[in-house]
Amino acid sequence: MGLTFEAGAPSASGGRVGVLHLPHGAVETPVFMPVGTAATVKAVPQDTLEHIGRAGAQIILANTYHLYLRPGHELIRRMGGLHRFMGWDRPMLTDSGGFQVFSLAKLRNVTPDGVEFRSHLDGSKHFFSPEHSIAVQIALGADILMTFDECVETPATWERTRDSMGLTHAWAARSKAYWLAHRHEVPWEQGSEKQGSGIGEQGSEDPHTPIAMALSDPCSLIPAPCLFGIVQGGMYPDLRRESAERLVEMDFDGYAIGGLAVGEPREVTREMIGLTLELLPKDKPRYVMGVGYPDEIEEYARIGVDMMDCVLPTRAARHGLLFRAAEPGEDGPAVRMNIKRLEYAEDQRPIDPSCGCMVCQRYTRAYLRHLFVAREPLAATLNSIHNLEYYLATLDRVRGSLAECS
Amino acid sequence: MGLTFEAGAPSASGGRVGVLHLPHGAVETPVFMPVGTAATVKAVPQDTLEHIGRAGAQIILANTYHLYLRPGHELIRRMGGLHRFMGWDRPMLTDSGGFQVFSLAKLRNVTPDGVEFRSHLDGSKHFFSPEHSIAVQIALGADILMTFDECVETPATWERTRDSMGLTHAWAARSKAYWLAHRHEVPWEQGSEKQGSGIGEQGSEDPHTPIAMALSDPCSLIPAPCLFGIVQGGMYPDLRRESAERLVEMDFDGYAIGGLAVGEPREVTREMIGLTLELLPKDKPRYVMGVGYPDEIEEYARIGVDMMDCVLPTRAARHGLLFRAAEPGEDGPAVRMNIKRLEYAEDQRPIDPSCGCMVCQRYTRAYLRHLFVAREPLAATLNSIHNLEYYLATLDRVRGSLAECS
Repeated sequence: MGLTFEAGAPSASGGRVGVLHLPHGAVETPVFMPVGTAATVKAVPQDTLEHIGRAGAQIILANTYHLYLRPGHELIRRMGGLHRFMGWDRPMLTDSGGFQVFSLAKLRNVTPDGVEFRSHLDGSKHFFSPEHSIAVQIALGADILMTFDECVETPATWERTRDSMGLTHAWAARSKAYWLAHRHEVPWEQGSEKQGSGIGEQGSEDPHTPIAMALSDPCSLIPAPCLFGIVQGGMYPDLRRESAERLVEMDFDGYAIGGLAVGEPREVTREMIGLTLELLPKDKPRYVMGVGYPDEIEEYARIGVDMMDCVLPTRAARHGLLFRAAEPGEDGPAVRMNIKRLEYAEDQRPIDPSCGCMVCQRYTRAYLRHLFVAREPLAATLNSIHNLEYYLATLDRVRGSLAECS
Repeated sequence: MGLTFEAGAPSASGGRVGVLHLPHGAVETPVFMPVGTAATVKAVPQDTLEHIGRAGAQIILANTYHLYLRPGHELIRRMGGLHRFMGWDRPMLTDSGGFQVFSLAKLRNVTPDGVEFRSHLDGSKHFFSPEHSIAVQIALGADILMTFDECVETPATWERTRDSMGLTHAWAARSKAYWLAHRHEVPWEQGSEKQGSGIGEQGSEDPHTPIAMALSDPCSLIPAPCLFGIVQGGMYPDLRRESAERLVEMDFDGYAIGGLAVGEPREVTREMIGLTLELLPKDKPRYVMGVGYPDEIEEYARIGVDMMDCVLPTRAARHGLLFRAAEPGEDGPAVRMNIKRLEYAEDQRPIDPSCGCMVCQRYTRAYLRHLFVAREPLAATLNSIHNLEYYLATLDRVRGSLAECS
């Protein structure tokens, strides 16, 4: 087994703390996973990622679609898998590539067998089936893999959503069958054979459980990645219910709630999450994909979502949008600052006086505005570090208060 | 006085170790100064700069021309000067802006009074005189300021070089007169008044001498920046001699050798440096501006150059050019690697197995190639860190061997 999950007792609103034991270490939940699309959380060095929030990023996500196209999953397999390739020895999750195939690639042709598409990089033709997605993910070697699903356009009719969901269920079953047969083909041992090179040995002082320890852990006697299913069903409660029931019957290590935060009103997102959570097993991790703003992250964690990921903190950072805690007299729990505004040109305060990150300890808004306006590469780095701190510190705080409840 | 310099006895080839005491701390020489054009060493966070080489970057350079145009020297003055503005409490040097006016700006019009030019950013019209250059540099508040000089085109005739040199000497005298009258107008105290903001206090644990200590240092009873003169004279030994003599008569805190590495053969550069060094006082720091490749840096340090700066390590890094030590069987002391080459696609070695930098400790050539090919912002950061390590470690080594000689 690739995973064990210890979930605490839920709070009145359903939130709970937990610990997810994965082949590359333990993850305290609820957790936010920074997105490292191309085997890098954009503009942030790995050692910096390890020092954001109270304990650093515990787990990061990489995108199968991007890595499949460049540098190629077979190359990453030969390099010992993603962990060794990028010098990151904490847990990782890969998505299935489905969402990017549907949002980035060109000339898609969906058949019951899979999706034919053209690369957004060079127009070359490719085909992803559930089996191929899992094969690529096994080559990448993350700790958590995701089933290949169809992502329906928004808005979609009930009939269209039902048909797409049916395809997603069939693909989930095929994803699981392929994973069962091939999950031990991860390249982790190839990686450890190459440890004599002097690269990648820095993990020995890491407090998280490395592979070698996982091997002696009874919960991971046969180290292998685990597989999460993805509940679809659009904005239709009856379809969400049917999808959750079908996925739970198939028995996955964890369950994602997909197809949300795609343009629907936020009350609908919340409703769909709330009703789906009720239908998922309490002893398995529950993951909402691709959300959201800091207050959403907090809200969903407090009702029982264990895992979330989003490009927002890093993408917003690269566009000069920074998150900070509201001060007395300001609306809302989080304030969004557009650092390029003239009002910050001579502002000697840190982004957030209550923030403990290395950016707020050292740099002023005036300096960050200058870097952004001058298009200096350091702007993306410092802005991203701060925004990730805001997200990770938010979840540190939520975990603390949920732990008091349980 | 803004500077004291303790120079050790020279080696057989003229090289010497020394310690430069500046208002913001001590600098061991010979030293390489990373270039932080727009108040940032491109793509490298300040805390990382403090951990490159044995003791981090001891002193960095910023460009007066760029900062004058954006964000403006008056803004930086109001922010307490460059040190506070960018969160860097170690020594800094600013150039005069002259070189950039002659290489970047448009529609230059040189008169005995100064240079009229148009901004390369927006075409707006500006005028730099020696007095204005020093006024801008005082507002920026570096530890070492440079006299305003004319940079002659290359190649230039003897007559043209002589006339330009004459202008440079007149401007050096005017630069010094303005500096004498205004050097105490640096904004350092404005900075320290604002220390209650919580930003910029990280310097208290820094091993380098901060301002507060400099105030109690008898060598800097009246803390002020120091001023270096710039020897010109092109590629003509007689003009170089005349320029050095004239500058030394004017008495500066240190002397730069300018107008080199502008396209002339390397033997000529070396000859000009060698003959000019002979003419400069042994008890003052000697600075060669804008050089060079790692082996040049080492060579000049070994014949008695105390200070150097160059954009090469960081600019080359952003273009994927990395420096590493030669291995047995390879030519030369330093090897230049073009990381985008296919041969590195699956190379699991670090850039330089003998390098102690954080990049070589953690990342493979294969990963760095992937980042560069995928145009990931982390490529510029990691490549720059490694190249700066190569330069700073080279000078750590040269200082070590010169110290043994003296």
